[in-house]
Amino acid sequence: MLMKNATQAKPHDRLAAYLESDMAEVGTLIRARMASEHAPRIPEVTAHLVEAGGKRLRPMLVLAAARMCGYDGPYHVHLAATVEFIHTATLLHDDVVDESQQRRGRPTANLLWDNQSSVLVGDYLFARSFQLMTEPGSMRVMKILSNSAATIAEGEVLQLTAAQNLKTDEGIYLQVVRGKTAALFSAATEVGGVIAGAEDATVKALFDYGDALGIAFQIVDDLLDYQGQADTTGKNVGDDFRERKLTLPLIKAVAKADAEERAFWERTIEKGRQEDGDLEQAMALMVKHGTLEATKADALGWAQKANAALAPLPDHDLKTMLLDLSDYVVSRVS
Amino acid sequence: MLMKNATQAKPHDRLAAYLESDMAEVGTLIRARMASEHAPRIPEVTAHLVEAGGKRLRPMLVLAAARMCGYDGPYHVHLAATVEFIHTATLLHDDVVDESQQRRGRPTANLLWDNQSSVLVGDYLFARSFQLMTEPGSMRVMKILSNSAATIAEGEVLQLTAAQNLKTDEGIYLQVVRGKTAALFSAATEVGGVIAGAEDATVKALFDYGDALGIAFQIVDDLLDYQGQADTTGKNVGDDFRERKLTLPLIKAVAKADAEERAFWERTIEKGRQEDGDLEQAMALMVKHGTLEATKADALGWAQKANAALAPLPDHDLKTMLLDLSDYVVSRVS
Repeated sequence: MLMKNATQAKPHDRLAAYLESDMAEVGTLIRARMASEHAPRIPEVTAHLVEAGGKRLRPMLVLAAARMCGYDGPYHVHLAATVEFIHTATLLHDDVVDESQQRRGRPTANLLWDNQSSVLVGDYLFARSFQLMTEPGSMRVMKILSNSAATIAEGEVLQLTAAQNLKTDEGIYLQVVRGKTAALFSAATEVGGVIAGAEDATVKALFDYGDALGIAFQIVDDLLDYQGQADTTGKNVGDDFRERKLTLPLIKAVAKADAEERAFWERTIEKGRQEDGDLEQAMALMVKHGTLEATKADALGWAQKANAALAPLPDHDLKTMLLDLSDYVVSRVS
Repeated sequence: MLMKNATQAKPHDRLAAYLESDMAEVGTLIRARMASEHAPRIPEVTAHLVEAGGKRLRPMLVLAAARMCGYDGPYHVHLAATVEFIHTATLLHDDVVDESQQRRGRPTANLLWDNQSSVLVGDYLFARSFQLMTEPGSMRVMKILSNSAATIAEGEVLQLTAAQNLKTDEGIYLQVVRGKTAALFSAATEVGGVIAGAEDATVKALFDYGDALGIAFQIVDDLLDYQGQADTTGKNVGDDFRERKLTLPLIKAVAKADAEERAFWERTIEKGRQEDGDLEQAMALMVKHGTLEATKADALGWAQKANAALAPLPDHDLKTMLLDLSDYVVSRVS
């Protein structure tokens, strides 16, 4: 896809254009590996999600890191497909856990088929991702990716036990976010460097970039839950409040609550007794304490950390796009 | 554990006694790896299942195969823990899929905690199993175990789509059973041989033994659903009928049904309109067509195949126990 004015295009579109032929191979590999000789339900469910038009940010991070480090072998494609399979498996399981009805503006698989199919097809994609990650034959790559899968699950369980609990603080929030989101971003950029044989300092820089980008990405996502428009985010404003999730804007508001406000949070979040007007009251408290602004500042800080990590690497078109990507991710709430 | 009369003890107890020190190491490794620094819910849920007193047949198969082939390194312990983690993860997810309330005579994790915890802790154990399987550094072992995880999930999805469908025949049943049960048995015995550096014919014999043992094991399990006592199996007679599962005794009865019987199966299994007395009628039809006996004969046939596969291997105490194990598995319904 050629851009008339490449510098004006969104960074992930510029990445997609630059990596177009690699991404075509990733798509071919994903379609080949999501097939199942015996169980046609598997590709049906997977295709619903894979072809729903996600941005495929995670596989592009693998490819961009590998290409930036001069890789010209075939295996960045396998690793890109691996992270997309892990991501798709976690989406299927998340929608069961959250009892979601919509994902990317379409009905979720658990709604179209059933929870059983979502659980089991997710398991199949996890297993497929592990088959794929063995193919490059690199022990280091396998360790990074299998560790990231464990960290993701750990973050999801931690999120489950932190929900509805007003003791959840910014430290626990960061652990959850590092697990459920940043672990796969950082594994993606790290294995890109490793497969290219980059030196340790470069691999570390790529890991740090992915980690900080993932954290910024999730903080913005949590902020958009209170500030976004349903037509651009595909989510309804206040879903996290209704589901009593302790995300950063709310955690910051709870930390500044006086006695009366604390009683409000205990009723709505801990006890879950929500009434008409409570979302508006919650948002008024966030505005009063400036926690939406403070959350935005945190996201900007993480985007800056991401870019500081990449700064020492040599100039490259892909490096420019990755730097712009961090800025773009937080610009959604700027 | 010392036996007064070792040849009279049940074969899995003799295996447990012979492999006692290896199994102690497996237990230590399992406890170490099911820990989670950040999410205490994980070891709580896992311990509920791991310490519920399962027979740990699958890890013993790894250890027995490796020791029979003269292995004296440390990694059979990692591989035994790997298959137990995969097994435990599938149990957690199965109980969500089947909406089970009891497992090994205790309330299931989905009942004690919630479906969310069962899904996510299962994912964590899958990821942990993949971390463990990389540790011996054998590509061949990783391929066998990651393939088996994919085959298990595929078998579970196939079972889901085959349920309530009277077109499910013995061929599809065998595919389901090979996936959901035999794939992990055969991977267990196969990786035991591979890690020991056994020659190809021996590895093939171990695979064939595990495959046939797993099939016999599952056929017996399905038969006990109609013939067993709730106090020995921990299941209620007729659960599979009530859940409209097409298992071998039922598939054989459907194949022999006349028009009136066919209408009965269509009402009870396809449409799920079950009434008092239907289970008794279903069992009467199985007796009429001799399908319980025929199913038992199939199980015996698979146990014989398992033992025929092992026959060419050199004499060994563990070989004797494995041969006795196949006989014992089917003796539960003899």
